Amino acid sequence: MKKIVVIGATGTLGQAVSEALKARHEVIEVGATRGQYQVDSTDPASVERLFRELGKVDGVVTATGKLHFGPLEQMSSEQFWVGLRDKLMGQINVVLAAQNYVNDGGSFTLTSGIVGDEPIREGANATTVNLALEGFVRGAAIELPRGIRINVVSPTVLTESMGAYGPYFRGFEPVSAQRAAQGYLRSVEGAQTGRVYRVGY
Amino acid sequence: MKKIVVIGATGTLGQAVSEALKARHEVIEVGATRGQYQVDSTDPASVERLFRELGKVDGVVTATGKLHFGPLEQMSSEQFWVGLRDKLMGQINVVLAAQNYVNDGGSFTLTSGIVGDEPIREGANATTVNLALEGFVRGAAIELPRGIRINVVSPTVLTESMGAYGPYFRGFEPVSAQRAAQGYLRSVEGAQTGRVYRVGY
Ligand SMILES: NC(=O)c1ccc[n+]([C@@H]2O[C@H](COP(=O)([O-])OP(=O)(O)OC[C@H]3O[C@@H](n4cnc5c(N)ncnc54)[C@H](OP(=O)(O)O)[C@@H]3O)[C@@H](O)[C@H]2O)c1
Ligand SMILES: NC(=O)c1ccc[n+]([C@@H]2O[C@H](COP(=O)([O-])OP(=O)(O)OC[C@H]3O[C@@H](n4cnc5c(N)ncnc54)[C@H](OP(=O)(O)O)[C@@H]3O)[C@@H](O)[C@H]2O)c1
Repeated sequence: MKKIVVIGATGTLGQAVSEALKARHEVIEVGATRGQYQVDSTDPASVERLFRELGKVDGVVTATGKLHFGPLEQMSSEQFWVGLRDKLMGQINVVLAAQNYVNDGGSFTLTSGIVGDEPIREGANATTVNLALEGFVRGAAIELPRGIRINVVSPTVLTESMGAYGPYFRGFEPVSAQRAAQGYLRSVEGAQTGRVYRVGY
Repeated sequence: MKKIVVIGATGTLGQAVSEALKARHEVIEVGATRGQYQVDSTDPASVERLFRELGKVDGVVTATGKLHFGPLEQMSSEQFWVGLRDKLMGQINVVLAAQNYVNDGGSFTLTSGIVGDEPIREGANATTVNLALEGFVRGAAIELPRGIRINVVSPTVLTESMGAYGPYFRGFEPVSAQRAAQGYLRSVEGAQTGRVYRVGY
């Protein structure tokens, strides 16, 4: 039994990840406004406060992150920053601050998404941010000390989100959040590091 | 003969790219402080001013970008932002602002680097930014209008830079800037889009 913090545990994906992990682990559920604990992962000081309060853990999962969707032709730099600040740096801030709070042999598991591999219209910000996260994991994996591992899960679109995102994903087969959660189990309970776990595609 | 703007034309890599392009094209050389024109690519308004002054062009090459190198264990979020602001958004700002100034069938060519594929110690920021650029190109390629193409060149370390970067790249075979410049010719004069042209590895 490990002690695993899930940031974004109150979200569509994060809820399913928390449920799956609870079968065998102690899970600390963190949200922005809901959950047992709150954090603003875009603010490094807020992340530091959270981990000072939680103390040592065996694993950290992040399933958070806003992106900007819109036509490239009208995209402003300011809009592009949304995904960099929120989905990208939100997750990187957690790794930078939490690395000293993760026990030997522990793990980080981040979240990217299928749009990194399969570009869609209005998705340039998402493709950029998702590949950036995969780059971060590749770079961090060779530097994290004490056997700490880091991976990223890239789910396809979730069945639960097809109401909102369906028009972007015609012909994509969605997966349930519960099935996407299996990727997080592979990362947390497996032995690999620097991996991208694609789920559903 | 095409009209090609090279941003970063006064740098180690950009000088060689400009020279290679000049064999067959009109090249406008842009730097931060040197060159025929100056721009601060981290500032969208400065990029907009440059293209308003230059008018329509057939191609835009960017060979700019600072990164933060340092141990992950001591990396702050603020340090991580360096590469996002400079190398990543510096090049993306150019595409967002210049897309309306590129003629039908024109091209963008950005610069990433081998550390995207081959992580090195102290290189997490570089691996992240380089893959982010490759993601941007993948996403933008399917949206750019009027047959405008976009690619990214990923050179290995340059012979000219081994004095400064050698200790990070033991066992890597460097290439001359002149050879790296060939990747830019493939992008500017070829017909593909959404490609990563790796040079020297
Ligand atoms: N949904 C999909 O189809 C899908 C597919 C592939 C990848 N993804 C990726 O999966 C991630 C989660 O997506 P989702 O659909 O589950 O999103 P969601 O339902 O909107 O959930 C977002 C979660 O993040 C938390 N959160 C929001 N802002 C935060 C902040 N600044 N600091 C800390 N926590 C914050 C929310 O907390 P509160 O509930 O307290 O506000 C919530 O727990 C995103 O990166 C998304 O791109 C989603
Ligand atoms: N050198 C290598 O071994 C190597 C290998 C692979 C990839 N790369 C990548 O290639 C790119 C260029 O590297 P380099 O070694 O040629 O760098 P460099 O010699 O330092 O040249 C940088 C160039 O960018 C310009 N510049 C700097 N800040 C700028 C800004 N804010 N706005 C517009 N232009 C700006 C400089 O202009 P001024 O001269 O006027 O200051 C100069 O022309 C970088 O992205 C680097 O990561 C380099």
